[in-house]
Amino acid sequence: MPPAEVVLGENRYGKAEVRIVAVSRDGDRHEIKDLNVSIALAGDFDATHLTGANADVLPTDTQKNTVYASAKEHGVGEIEAFGLRLARHFVDSHGPTRRCWVRLEEYGWDRMRVGGEPAPHSFARTGPETRVAEVAAAQEGDELVVSGISGLVVLNSTGSEFHGFHQDRYTTLPETRDRILATEVSARWRHLPGDQPVDQRDWRTSFDETRRHLLEAFADTYSLSLQQTLYAMGERVVRERDEIAEVRLALPNRHHLLVDLAPFGLANENEVFYASDRPYGLIEGTVRRAGVAESALAW
Amino acid sequence: MPPAEVVLGENRYGKAEVRIVAVSRDGDRHEIKDLNVSIALAGDFDATHLTGANADVLPTDTQKNTVYASAKEHGVGEIEAFGLRLARHFVDSHGPTRRCWVRLEEYGWDRMRVGGEPAPHSFARTGPETRVAEVAAAQEGDELVVSGISGLVVLNSTGSEFHGFHQDRYTTLPETRDRILATEVSARWRHLPGDQPVDQRDWRTSFDETRRHLLEAFADTYSLSLQQTLYAMGERVVRERDEIAEVRLALPNRHHLLVDLAPFGLANENEVFYASDRPYGLIEGTVRRAGVAESALAW
Amino acid sequence: MPPAEVVLGENRYGKAEVRIVAVSRDGDRHEIKDLNVSIALAGDFDATHLTGANADVLPTDTQKNTVYASAKEHGVGEIEAFGLRLARHFVDSHGPTRRCWVRLEEYGWDRMRVGGEPAPHSFARTGPETRVAEVAAAQEGDELVVSGISGLVVLNSTGSEFHGFHQDRYTTLPETRDRILATEVSARWRHLPGDQPVDQRDWRTSFDETRRHLLEAFADTYSLSLQQTLYAMGERVVRERDEIAEVRLALPNRHHLLVDLAPFGLANENEVFYASDRPYGLIEGTVRRAGVAESALAW
Amino acid sequence: MPPAEVVLGENRYGKAEVRIVAVSRDGDRHEIKDLNVSIALAGDFDATHLTGANADVLPTDTQKNTVYASAKEHGVGEIEAFGLRLARHFVDSHGPTRRCWVRLEEYGWDRMRVGGEPAPHSFARTGPETRVAEVAAAQEGDELVVSGISGLVVLNSTGSEFHGFHQDRYTTLPETRDRILATEVSARWRHLPGDQPVDQRDWRTSFDETRRHLLEAFADTYSLSLQQTLYAMGERVVRERDEIAEVRLALPNRHHLLVDLAPFGLANENEVFYASDRPYGLIEGTVRRAGVAESALAW
Repeated sequence: MPPAEVVLGENRYGKAEVRIVAVSRDGDRHEIKDLNVSIALAGDFDATHLTGANADVLPTDTQKNTVYASAKEHGVGEIEAFGLRLARHFVDSHGPTRRCWVRLEEYGWDRMRVGGEPAPHSFARTGPETRVAEVAAAQEGDELVVSGISGLVVLNSTGSEFHGFHQDRYTTLPETRDRILATEVSARWRHLPGDQPVDQRDWRTSFDETRRHLLEAFADTYSLSLQQTLYAMGERVVRERDEIAEVRLALPNRHHLLVDLAPFGLANENEVFYASDRPYGLIEGTVRRAGVAESALAW
Repeated sequence: MPPAEVVLGENRYGKAEVRIVAVSRDGDRHEIKDLNVSIALAGDFDATHLTGANADVLPTDTQKNTVYASAKEHGVGEIEAFGLRLARHFVDSHGPTRRCWVRLEEYGWDRMRVGGEPAPHSFARTGPETRVAEVAAAQEGDELVVSGISGLVVLNSTGSEFHGFHQDRYTTLPETRDRILATEVSARWRHLPGDQPVDQRDWRTSFDETRRHLLEAFADTYSLSLQQTLYAMGERVVRERDEIAEVRLALPNRHHLLVDLAPFGLANENEVFYASDRPYGLIEGTVRRAGVAESALAW
Repeated sequence: MPPAEVVLGENRYGKAEVRIVAVSRDGDRHEIKDLNVSIALAGDFDATHLTGANADVLPTDTQKNTVYASAKEHGVGEIEAFGLRLARHFVDSHGPTRRCWVRLEEYGWDRMRVGGEPAPHSFARTGPETRVAEVAAAQEGDELVVSGISGLVVLNSTGSEFHGFHQDRYTTLPETRDRILATEVSARWRHLPGDQPVDQRDWRTSFDETRRHLLEAFADTYSLSLQQTLYAMGERVVRERDEIAEVRLALPNRHHLLVDLAPFGLANENEVFYASDRPYGLIEGTVRRAGVAESALAW
Repeated sequence: MPPAEVVLGENRYGKAEVRIVAVSRDGDRHEIKDLNVSIALAGDFDATHLTGANADVLPTDTQKNTVYASAKEHGVGEIEAFGLRLARHFVDSHGPTRRCWVRLEEYGWDRMRVGGEPAPHSFARTGPETRVAEVAAAQEGDELVVSGISGLVVLNSTGSEFHGFHQDRYTTLPETRDRILATEVSARWRHLPGDQPVDQRDWRTSFDETRRHLLEAFADTYSLSLQQTLYAMGERVVRERDEIAEVRLALPNRHHLLVDLAPFGLANENEVFYASDRPYGLIEGTVRRAGVAESALAW
């Protein structure tokens, strides 16, 4: 056999997990933004792979510096706009960088209250949920803005059934007409291009409302399967928010198993559950607005 | 050298991390309690160590069953009372068990709102903070109730200085008159015995108020060191809450380092910070009510 | 605006993280396999999303049972073959399941030695590295076998430079002619179809040799960039292992920063480093055998 | 009720998780040490708590610097000696520091082999196990050296029974004559003072041999309870290693539950197990050499 011919395929690189906390002041009253920013560049980077020639490499250290400097020069604001400004900077200022992805996580902080009054510069972390954005820009002008949410844990203590499923030789699961339905929502939604400049779009309201629709659809869907709940959540968002092209959801089914109390002479009327860690079901799906174009940039 | 004489020293055992979710119903309206319960028994357990004779061993599996059965038989209620009921059960019902510790973590859930109205049976996890209790009971009657909080992350964006410290050959830290002060509060507070039965004490109010005092003392202490803030937090609790004998605090100093933007021709006026993971300072301390007796049970 | 038309897009579901430990016996001598298995099915599952009709749903609980039963009926063996047997089972036995992916992690265990002799049934976990496989099967017959490795942490304490990179306004990184290069290798490699039945291919040797080539290429590449090292690792595998079509690598650059000891009157000649957690560079790339077809199944 | 009198109780502070990688060279051949070092100082620190006066505070930043400088000035060597040198430095050089604890974790690295030969400066992480040391020094001269191990996961696939245990109303566990016994060993052992200077004691051999005895005792103890195995492990160490005063062990019982395959018409003869995450048993115990004095320093 002759020696293999080997080629470099898809590749990208960047600085991951740049942790930035930015403080802005309005007199004595402060606001904070707490972000985790990851950057990836793709383009004409064959040389560094093949020979170690780095003339076209923008170091990841410089990318990190750019995040911090950009926060000072332009402020942080909403993560979609901050990320897109960074992505545009890299594709516009560095020729070999053809495409740039920026992923941002925003950790929530609530203003504390002292003696019933809002404190001017004291905050407590909320969570476990984080707001995320995944944006991209290409030299030829394509752009992508995806907003999302991670770690949002929700539970319905009733209003969920599961029955009528396919049976085979390995089936042991009993059917149920009343179960706990719990999941940790991971959601990403792609924005339609929009007419306004990104700095002027109201990303905060869009996020807050989308989050609200996801939660409300989870809560008020009488569920025959977690898939049905997933679709209802995505459908609600697409119907209610004109700016959103599609929603991708990943919903682990966090099983809550009814504890058998019969050996102790006790009835368990859906009162006492064991919250299981593993294994768990994992339901993934996309809900789309009919007729919208795909993005030119993968996500 | 003659053969060593070997003896069994302190020992204990139990079931750890029993995950229980309990649903209680008031008509259509549900409440949930989400706990992680760990049990440890100490007493006359030499035989199983020395020979594997298990007649005096209450299996950890049985301990787990007891947690679930107790939740059904008596309800869950506040974790201090639930834990103490369990601890008493083991020392009262099983002769070789001389002392029992129960550690409980409670995960918070907020009732969702749908269309502005509270949802009857839908909830979203709060966090990252958890409420904890560490209780103990001994056969001879001693009891210990410790309440606490873990994972409460707080930040003051100003109002903190650090200077005037000891200098030696290895000192490079500059003094500062304005810094971010951030920490993840881990607090435990021991309750005085009290006159009321444990089931009738208002553990919820005690927790809520103690938490509020910790937060308010963090926010309104102008800080010259994290130690000063720690003491202020403990002192506030002891002064304001008559039921509390002492407070133990562990406060990691989550450093937020000012980013040097000078190379980019930018001034950084306490606006842009790098949130560092490691290393971190760790400040631990106890604040006590003068004159109260120590607990007979270690914690 | 008329009501949005909403459609269901890509979707899949399955049981994740089925933890299985299988013991096989040859007389007194045991072997163990310790796996974490995750399954995903895609196909004709619109009904459960749209109406909650579950007749075509194979419950994730049944999938879990199938993993355990399969381990008994056919043994576990190498994870590529075990996974593919499972994937084929689902697409062959359940009409609505058009495609199935199985992801497997295998945790390593070494046989202990007692008094210099191998113990018959005692083992100690190795790690932190895990062997992985990601396989897929489609009803129309396409199959995909990807092997891989996660969590393999490697370090060269010299033999790495980084200089000659692009400079811009945000550059502060000094060039270096000698640095530590450390990374946590995450590698996936796709197998060519092969002539033998999957149960008869020597997956173990293929894995061991591929792992050896990755490590050796890391160690003996004099590196001008982590990209160059990445390419060298992939190229080595493609050149040396005829059964492999392509290699995907993700290499976080675990920065080891030289500590400035000058303030203490000490020189640091590449001796004392601070191992930084975040941020880190992340280098991702694919190295391919020229001329091989793409897989019909995404991975 | 008059205002509470409040007092400061026990307190300590220090820098935690200083990550240091040290490279030493013997010509072309390198050695690396990879440590995580945490320091805690106790002493006369009332002023900073009560008033924020920091004149007696040795900043945690300085402690960090001291770790790095000490690695350069004296080398790292074995962690017990490195830690004790640091602890002595702080109590000897800083009057208000009355006692100092240093906790060290050492991450293992194996030298790679290339073409069958040991590589001069390339390494791969071992694990998940880590070697630890916890040392302390007091101004009045008391010292404490504790060595240990964390994250050592071991499993016997037979040779373990559990029966004859106490039965009560909540018992459902069946007795078993053959089960998997698996645990993650966390062990700490205190050294007797010894006659040699700490820099000349053979900590490496002591650690390697103690580890070997723990493993061998785990493997060759026919076990009627995990407590019996714990005692056998500690006893073996105390009998075999004259330098060790006592051993503390914490052994989580990582339950491996036999999967019920009967519904599928299959027998499970201790072949297929579900590895459960939670809950788990937790067995803690101390094994001592009779007649040795307690340490004057808590651990």
